[in-house]
Amino acid sequence: MAHGIYLDNNTTTHPSEKAIAKMLPFLTERWGTPSAPHLIGQQLFPAIEEALKGIYALLGAKESDNIIFTSSGAEGVNQIILSTYFDITVHTGKNQYITSVIDEAPAILAIGRLEQLSCVAVMAPADKNGRVTAQAIIEAMTPRTALVSLAWANGLTGVVNPIQEIAAVCRERGVYLHIDASHVLGKIFPEWEEIPAQFLTFNGDSFHAPSGTAGLFIRADVNCSPLILGGMEQGGYRAGTYSVGGLAALGQAAREAIDARDYMCTEVARLRGKFEKDLIASIPDAIVFFQDQERLPNCTAIAFPGVANEALLYLLSRKGVYASIGGGTYQQLGLILAASGIDPILAHTALSFSLSRETTEDEIDRAIVIIAECVQHLRKISKKNIIVSL
Amino acid sequence: MAHGIYLDNNTTTHPSEKAIAKMLPFLTERWGTPSAPHLIGQQLFPAIEEALKGIYALLGAKESDNIIFTSSGAEGVNQIILSTYFDITVHTGKNQYITSVIDEAPAILAIGRLEQLSCVAVMAPADKNGRVTAQAIIEAMTPRTALVSLAWANGLTGVVNPIQEIAAVCRERGVYLHIDASHVLGKIFPEWEEIPAQFLTFNGDSFHAPSGTAGLFIRADVNCSPLILGGMEQGGYRAGTYSVGGLAALGQAAREAIDARDYMCTEVARLRGKFEKDLIASIPDAIVFFQDQERLPNCTAIAFPGVANEALLYLLSRKGVYASIGGGTYQQLGLILAASGIDPILAHTALSFSLSRETTEDEIDRAIVIIAECVQHLRKISKKNIIVSL
Repeated sequence: MAHGIYLDNNTTTHPSEKAIAKMLPFLTERWGTPSAPHLIGQQLFPAIEEALKGIYALLGAKESDNIIFTSSGAEGVNQIILSTYFDITVHTGKNQYITSVIDEAPAILAIGRLEQLSCVAVMAPADKNGRVTAQAIIEAMTPRTALVSLAWANGLTGVVNPIQEIAAVCRERGVYLHIDASHVLGKIFPEWEEIPAQFLTFNGDSFHAPSGTAGLFIRADVNCSPLILGGMEQGGYRAGTYSVGGLAALGQAAREAIDARDYMCTEVARLRGKFEKDLIASIPDAIVFFQDQERLPNCTAIAFPGVANEALLYLLSRKGVYASIGGGTYQQLGLILAASGIDPILAHTALSFSLSRETTEDEIDRAIVIIAECVQHLRKISKKNIIVSL
Repeated sequence: MAHGIYLDNNTTTHPSEKAIAKMLPFLTERWGTPSAPHLIGQQLFPAIEEALKGIYALLGAKESDNIIFTSSGAEGVNQIILSTYFDITVHTGKNQYITSVIDEAPAILAIGRLEQLSCVAVMAPADKNGRVTAQAIIEAMTPRTALVSLAWANGLTGVVNPIQEIAAVCRERGVYLHIDASHVLGKIFPEWEEIPAQFLTFNGDSFHAPSGTAGLFIRADVNCSPLILGGMEQGGYRAGTYSVGGLAALGQAAREAIDARDYMCTEVARLRGKFEKDLIASIPDAIVFFQDQERLPNCTAIAFPGVANEALLYLLSRKGVYASIGGGTYQQLGLILAASGIDPILAHTALSFSLSRETTEDEIDRAIVIIAECVQHLRKISKKNIIVSL
């Protein structure tokens, strides 16, 4: 199966061969379940510990804190928000929950559901730089704020939020903070121990672990009741059988992500810069957003005035170039740009491109040619349509 | 790695080689995510549909109903119970939830948590045959009952609950019914279309799919809001990335489970009968429970008077025979037997043994010799301890 030129790595990544190799023995020979109190279960423990060590290392986290293996980042986000309701709101009456208008759908929807339980959901705005500022969080807060849940970076625009400042604001006011770190792990150098947040979630398939592997990080001194109740698996934080092989793959992918961070921040960032520069040279009226902001090294959002982004995405897919416009109701690039003050018509001409450590310079060069052709083609059709309709 | 004599198949099963073979391409070549609106995502749809067809066939379900791929049976159980709260209790005030004292921990704990939201949890009793009767459900019900959640069969004793009768009772009273079918799929011939239940959950690793694969079945005319909110994946019933490979493996395992049902109900049942008969011949005072009840064909619970079941489980594990005493706070064999009226001291001498289609007659013969030796050994030690302590 040809994968063409894959520039949608912030949606999912190609699983690392080494990670899959780590997984396979648990699908064949070592197939037990760690909750079984006999040898077939117990002998899995060393592999589980080895995998967890890799994840701790990627986060730069102390092993006294807890990491829960989940099936998706979305699961972890939902767990934090529901557990905050049961662990804080029920006992203290603090019932206000803050996320942002440009956040991911799991946080927005899970907080939204709490409104049925008499909670108040607040969406902090984005500024014109595509960021959620600490000031915006301060203005959203009340003495009843129970939780702030924010993505560390936006996976479509690549803009990194000032999480350290926001965490300081939350700490000052005694408010719990959840950071969705899916898009930053392996791309920036988080100093987790210096960020006073209580919870962190991530998707493994953002850094070359297979789909369906993810994690939820919980500080040692914080409670987090399960989303999936039903037993003492994973220290009582999450019941249900799980794929030990998936966890082993996640641990291996985490180790590789650590090794690749320098490369991501230098060579991949260079390729992203070349992509932007050469694309502007080919399509002079294309607009690269938020270039002067702190951004993920692998990601760029670019508008092609006069071209509907859905049409361009579809045409590029047919030509073997894969990009993104986001998905669902909330995490759409057009809406995120519009929420950051970009003219909505222009916003809906934009695509998001995200590279990985596997992206080559040759792919970038070929992608630019194909994108330029497709944009030209769609503009021609668009003009013809106008003439016909005249 | 030697797996010894594995008689703990109701905890987890050896993944089928064919199921794993179905999974592998999605870990290597076909690694996209189906929510991506371009070729890399969209080309996964035929495989997803093929897998779902296998699961529909195993359930004997109409494809107009919905099947959601989940990470565990426990996840599905939690989804149904929380969604019933949001979809029924919030709108109607019906706030009583029924499960049974011998049910699995996810149902007991998830219903228990709703008590924090002013719901009432009721645990229907088991009768002396290890069953939950329709009469017990009738007696537990009130006009405010929102949901009954029951396991179709107990995975430790093997006793099958009279689900048809219970479903009829629920239908008459307009109460939703969830059936946890993990232990029956592939072992009995459910006629799902004739059972008026709204929800069904199962774990794939009960029928030789890999761990971390499971399903939630929802009738077409019933709502079930997500446990994991965050997007339109899986028709909006469950957000978050998931392992398409895991789903493919589950579909294949479902097909094999259909093919193996006859064998499970004849040859595996014969081996189970031989195991019980020969074990009694070797250890005359051993007691087989619920032999005259409708039971799963592969499972038996046997007491060894005078022997602590935890000690026996441990010793058997060292000798390469793997059995079960259950796990966690609720699903313990001793508690389940005691709840069915068995003397608690006797109940805590019992082990559960569960065969699979891979269990051989030679394994059964060897297991009996090892079990008899271990029981004799523990009884000797126990007598010596008594003499010493005198």
